[in-house]
Amino acid sequence: MTHTRILTGITTTGTPHLGNYVGAIRPAIEASQDSAMETFYFLADFHALIKARDPRVVEQSRLEIAATWLALGLDTNRSTFYRQSDIPEIPELAWLLSCVCAKGLMNRAHAYKAAVADNEEGGSADPDRGITMGLYGYPVLMAADILMFNANRVPVGRDQVQHIEMARDIAGRFNHLYKGQYFTLPEAVIDERVQLLNGLDGRKMSKSYDNTIPLFVSEKKLLKLIRKIKTNSLEPGEPKETEGDTLFQIYQAFADTAETEAMRQRYAEGIGWGDAKNQLFELVNEQLTAPRERYYSLLDDPGHIEQILQQGAEKAREEAAKTLDRLRSAVGLGRFI
Amino acid sequence: MTHTRILTGITTTGTPHLGNYVGAIRPAIEASQDSAMETFYFLADFHALIKARDPRVVEQSRLEIAATWLALGLDTNRSTFYRQSDIPEIPELAWLLSCVCAKGLMNRAHAYKAAVADNEEGGSADPDRGITMGLYGYPVLMAADILMFNANRVPVGRDQVQHIEMARDIAGRFNHLYKGQYFTLPEAVIDERVQLLNGLDGRKMSKSYDNTIPLFVSEKKLLKLIRKIKTNSLEPGEPKETEGDTLFQIYQAFADTAETEAMRQRYAEGIGWGDAKNQLFELVNEQLTAPRERYYSLLDDPGHIEQILQQGAEKAREEAAKTLDRLRSAVGLGRFI
Repeated sequence: MTHTRILTGITTTGTPHLGNYVGAIRPAIEASQDSAMETFYFLADFHALIKARDPRVVEQSRLEIAATWLALGLDTNRSTFYRQSDIPEIPELAWLLSCVCAKGLMNRAHAYKAAVADNEEGGSADPDRGITMGLYGYPVLMAADILMFNANRVPVGRDQVQHIEMARDIAGRFNHLYKGQYFTLPEAVIDERVQLLNGLDGRKMSKSYDNTIPLFVSEKKLLKLIRKIKTNSLEPGEPKETEGDTLFQIYQAFADTAETEAMRQRYAEGIGWGDAKNQLFELVNEQLTAPRERYYSLLDDPGHIEQILQQGAEKAREEAAKTLDRLRSAVGLGRFI
Repeated sequence: MTHTRILTGITTTGTPHLGNYVGAIRPAIEASQDSAMETFYFLADFHALIKARDPRVVEQSRLEIAATWLALGLDTNRSTFYRQSDIPEIPELAWLLSCVCAKGLMNRAHAYKAAVADNEEGGSADPDRGITMGLYGYPVLMAADILMFNANRVPVGRDQVQHIEMARDIAGRFNHLYKGQYFTLPEAVIDERVQLLNGLDGRKMSKSYDNTIPLFVSEKKLLKLIRKIKTNSLEPGEPKETEGDTLFQIYQAFADTAETEAMRQRYAEGIGWGDAKNQLFELVNEQLTAPRERYYSLLDDPGHIEQILQQGAEKAREEAAKTLDRLRSAVGLGRFI
């Protein structure tokens, strides 16, 4: 294998917004077109169960997110695109890894520690109140996600770096205990250039701030949302700052260099906010019109999405099954011959 | 389903001894012949990884234990006999259960608490020192073992009752959260009549006391071991107590009522220890000769054992796959249609 293998788990909660697109989906789809890379993208739906107890929410989000990636042009012949819950080898591997993973490692996981801190602040006598084994142990499942396919690189946000380090730790321990190079040690890749878009209120665009512009809404709704973006009170004709301006930032994320420079010029010349918003809408809408149409026709045909995901699962399992066979023999769970 | 479903996991570590046979294997095989019962017996080899890091030990023990049950006459047409690691639905179910299982429940598990107590007594600063996620979380896997097949009854020793209670707790919570009767609540069955044999030194026969008589050893070795059983210094001709006497206890476990009474009579008449040991040997050896021969020819043909286990796995998975499909839909991980 001479390709660099990149693996990304896609959280299947919520509806993708412009920030997700610019910061994660678009660069991932671009990477999948790079012939030096081998990409594995999966819907992390086992993980979704940790937080989402409403089956309709989990179901709907999985479908929408699969449709989103396909609508945006992910080529599933180049990339291995699958649903985690279609790969039974992953939870099995998670068990094998559990048996070499120190409990102490999980005690130090950020998500768990934050939940304990919340309990302590809330005055609970039980620091583990409301914490499930899923929340506590999910870094092991995440290690299985990554190690199952011997990924070299895992693009992550800063808050996820710890999980990749845990996967390395568990992989190294397994290799050591079972005396072999069973697993590649994955590396976290933090792309500092990743564009984090601001939302309607100027803070980071995030579902938890309720300030997002969903990726696929009607033209009318898109225009309405863009018009809601918070601006200052400068009048048309007064020169405007591009630095730190949400409108400009989103424009830049969708524009090429020439378009960006032209807009910068218009800011200096005192473009009115209304005009600027209309131009932003035109740019974004133009790029999203075709994917939006594909998105809605995909959503109308869930059976077709299922078929694509089944093909992805087949491709992924062909490799996962071989790897797991080797691991089973390594730990003493091989077949009798 | 009108049958009572009984499920037993067989630990695949160590070599079965007379105590295992009398206390567990023989009654289980008898239960499998009862037409009111539906029995599920499985080699708990995922669990074996918690303690055994040497793959050869795990491998060998699985093979020996499978051969033992078959040699002793388990009818795999009546009973579903399978290897846990052949059922990928089990670790997957374990993940679904993790997401509803309170971490606090695992904090109270005896095995975990004992390990923490050992660390504290040993003066370790880290109470979790040397404890893996496998050891910590295995009651969840055990719940998956049981709930996967909706077992009604799980025969266990007193030390295992807590695990069955945990499985009930997890099952009840899943049923509640996902609003359905997905799981039967299993019941622990403690058979007070289970015969616990003593070992060579008069303590309970156990691998950890190194006082066992392995089930399948050569006649010569069997005789040698029986001659090693600790007796008192009473001479031939002096009446002997049967109560609490290891020799007599083992004899009784293999004898019918008439044989037992005859031996009791000989004790009262002052049978010499040498004679008593010879008679014990004759009785045990007679019953074990045919199974021993079958055992060794089975061990010579691991491929045949594999085939039997694959048939068992197929039977078990036919049901497990259906159950898991239903559970996947319940939590929101169904297929897109």
